[in-house]
Amino acid sequence: MDAELLLMFAARAQHLAEKILPALARGAWVVCDRFTDATFAYQGGGRGIAKERITVLENFVQQGLSPDLTLLLDMPKEAATQRLESRLTDRQEQRDRFEQEPGDFFQAVRDAYLARAAEAPERFAVIDAQHSLEEVQTQIRQSLLNRVAAWR
Amino acid sequence: MDAELLLMFAARAQHLAEKILPALARGAWVVCDRFTDATFAYQGGGRGIAKERITVLENFVQQGLSPDLTLLLDMPKEAATQRLESRLTDRQEQRDRFEQEPGDFFQAVRDAYLARAAEAPERFAVIDAQHSLEEVQTQIRQSLLNRVAAWR
Repeated sequence: MDAELLLMFAARAQHLAEKILPALARGAWVVCDRFTDATFAYQGGGRGIAKERITVLENFVQQGLSPDLTLLLDMPKEAATQRLESRLTDRQEQRDRFEQEPGDFFQAVRDAYLARAAEAPERFAVIDAQHSLEEVQTQIRQSLLNRVAAWR
Repeated sequence: MDAELLLMFAARAQHLAEKILPALARGAWVVCDRFTDATFAYQGGGRGIAKERITVLENFVQQGLSPDLTLLLDMPKEAATQRLESRLTDRQEQRDRFEQEPGDFFQAVRDAYLARAAEAPERFAVIDAQHSLEEVQTQIRQSLLNRVAAWR
């Protein structure tokens, strides 16, 4: 489990060095699909690694850098499983390493994500992802506008 | 550089979990070809990552576990380069990621290894590896016997 966790942070360190830090240095806004909150959810909640141990690596790799806003697209496990099934069928894809885990794993991942959002409400916007694509987009747009207005 | 360092520790975490810890648990003696001293030498001395940062990951992965004896097979950079060249020719091999580095890199690696040995003389035995295979083996055997005698 430590090996998987260290591999996640190795990928993140490379992503930071090659993409994120140069983009921030030239003043760009950076949007990531998953970051360290996902590690707390999957390797923390899902695999059961203690939060304190993950924090050691987060500090090592990020050295104080943190997202300004994290959009958590949340939905119940059952609905997520249905979407996964239809995506796999539509695209003729196989389940990845995490998608092969049992339902309990995803419940623990979701719980960890929601706990993390509750601990940092100023950074998180929890989006109800059960709705249609258009409705989810509207929620995201609204969250983003609210935050940007607050930063000004 | 952090990514390479984290990959090294990911490999070490897996090696510990799958091989070393089970072997120690059944009472076996474990002999490794390179361990975390190599990381301090290559990623610390060679790549210039601060020792304190490497120590964070060492503590994370090893959680206090450390070798009882480390045999450092030492020789000057020039002689090592000659041996490398003849090995590559004999075996028709290509230089690996580290072997492609310039001479300064290896001098820094050697200096870091020797500094580490000087900091922990009770754990390190520095073997003069310029001699023949038989002589090196004799030195190793003698170091090992001395330590084992001291442990009794």
